[in-house]
Amino acid sequence: MSLDAAYYLQVLYLIAIVAEAVTAALVAGRRSMDWMGVAMLGPITALGGGSVRDVLLGRHPLSWVEHPSYLLITAGAALATIAVARYMHHLRKLFLFLDAIGLVVFTVIGCNIAIAMHMPFIIVIASGMITGCVGGVLRDMLCADIPLLFRTELYATVSIVTGVLYVGGQIVGLPHDAATGIAMAVGLSLRMLALRYGWSMPKFVYTHTLH
Amino acid sequence: MSLDAAYYLQVLYLIAIVAEAVTAALVAGRRSMDWMGVAMLGPITALGGGSVRDVLLGRHPLSWVEHPSYLLITAGAALATIAVARYMHHLRKLFLFLDAIGLVVFTVIGCNIAIAMHMPFIIVIASGMITGCVGGVLRDMLCADIPLLFRTELYATVSIVTGVLYVGGQIVGLPHDAATGIAMAVGLSLRMLALRYGWSMPKFVYTHTLH
Amino acid sequence: MSLDAAYYLQVLYLIAIVAEAVTAALVAGRRSMDWMGVAMLGPITALGGGSVRDVLLGRHPLSWVEHPSYLLITAGAALATIAVARYMHHLRKLFLFLDAIGLVVFTVIGCNIAIAMHMPFIIVIASGMITGCVGGVLRDMLCADIPLLFRTELYATVSIVTGVLYVGGQIVGLPHDAATGIAMAVGLSLRMLALRYGWSMPKFVYTHTLH
Repeated sequence: MSLDAAYYLQVLYLIAIVAEAVTAALVAGRRSMDWMGVAMLGPITALGGGSVRDVLLGRHPLSWVEHPSYLLITAGAALATIAVARYMHHLRKLFLFLDAIGLVVFTVIGCNIAIAMHMPFIIVIASGMITGCVGGVLRDMLCADIPLLFRTELYATVSIVTGVLYVGGQIVGLPHDAATGIAMAVGLSLRMLALRYGWSMPKFVYTHTLH
Repeated sequence: MSLDAAYYLQVLYLIAIVAEAVTAALVAGRRSMDWMGVAMLGPITALGGGSVRDVLLGRHPLSWVEHPSYLLITAGAALATIAVARYMHHLRKLFLFLDAIGLVVFTVIGCNIAIAMHMPFIIVIASGMITGCVGGVLRDMLCADIPLLFRTELYATVSIVTGVLYVGGQIVGLPHDAATGIAMAVGLSLRMLALRYGWSMPKFVYTHTLH
Repeated sequence: MSLDAAYYLQVLYLIAIVAEAVTAALVAGRRSMDWMGVAMLGPITALGGGSVRDVLLGRHPLSWVEHPSYLLITAGAALATIAVARYMHHLRKLFLFLDAIGLVVFTVIGCNIAIAMHMPFIIVIASGMITGCVGGVLRDMLCADIPLLFRTELYATVSIVTGVLYVGGQIVGLPHDAATGIAMAVGLSLRMLALRYGWSMPKFVYTHTLH
């Protein structure tokens, strides 16, 4: 990875954790949680995916244990959302765009970490998915909702496509920065198009009782 | 453990993870999840119990990190369930039988792993229970249900009985294969009888408010 | 830490895990769980916070793996609650007092463990909060509720105040026992006053749809 690429990825990572903390605050607000709940749900959502990945891969210390400022940044972003939320419906598109950036950035970072641990291809893709998607799952579970991940427009699919392009690009010999750029651009576009046109996977509807 | 026993246990393990992935798909279908949700809920349900056990015991790498094919097998089994689900009510009894096999096989494997780590008796039993039961708990939590484990017919009880017979049998000097066979046969029978006759533990009903 | 203080903290810890197991049983009873569910929810609630903390900090073995008797004590306490629950509304105030002791004791113990691992200040406070609060979150999630933590009177706030006083007291040069005593007394008082007068954090209410 070039120094420039590492720098941009770090900047994007900070944007991504802030964006995810903002989504957490908005979901918390829809459940009328108190300010402390909002302040906690921000870090859990923004840092939860990477934490679960590291715990599953046996990788320590976790990112926020090494960089405690991430806890403050994400808790602060969630709390700041309370102040600006009344203007947020004007910002809905920006918000969804930032959230999509979060998804592809987390995915690429998650793939990177598994590659650095010399994991096989499938685990690299899974590591990207876990990093990209689990934070939102934790957010929804703590709000006693069926996680959006399991119901919504191509969210996990975007993560897989991004991961496969990123890893596959490097396997076929693309420079790292090119593979990163292509994977993130395609993933981001796919997510925005899915939101714009309401693309979704077919549903599986099963109505028999099991027990 | 004899080579034969290890071989049979491995075959039973593969049957068990497929059976659990199928249960996950059916529960997902009742919640109208999309295909990607089904493909993810399969591995989480089938491999989640063993993963939680390993994370709690500090044992790495996790089984699916070492054998990524388990991810593909369980995701594939869950997706295949979509295709065959319309015929599934004919297969309900087979399904419940496979699920019960999963419970006792996971329990014995979980006990084995704790024994190999020289854990005390109670932790061995707990390891069996976690392996046998937690996957289904994760499945139900992700579907925003009260986990069946906490409400249903002797599920956890079967896991404890299986574990105690398996470990106890070896303590009193039974050959490993005999202890395995007896534990699994009794556990399986108990589960099938509980399903057949609706056996259940007494319920604790408390109606005062706490807060 | 003086030997006396370590001894009292151990006694308080045992009281705390019993108190948390009792809260778990009562919540389980409100959901009409069976006896086995009650017996499992007790240990999960009482020992879950410390377990999540240790998993996140990469600290093994977990306390209950090292002391399996904690599993029996907490399962036993939860089961005993079934027998005495009919008299429990007379004990409501004692129960809330014990639960508050659990919160501050768990918090101090969680801070201690992070200090012993030479963690920075923010992680020490977070370790206290996780130890103090996560068990109740797991309990509520397993009952498919929005965790009380995110909705209720100053629960997490009490944990932060206790942790900051405990660590801050030592930083400004108070003897360890004095810092412990002050932190726990203030935390406990704050919680009891919050319950008595219904103090709570302001709520964040957001009603726009996000998706």
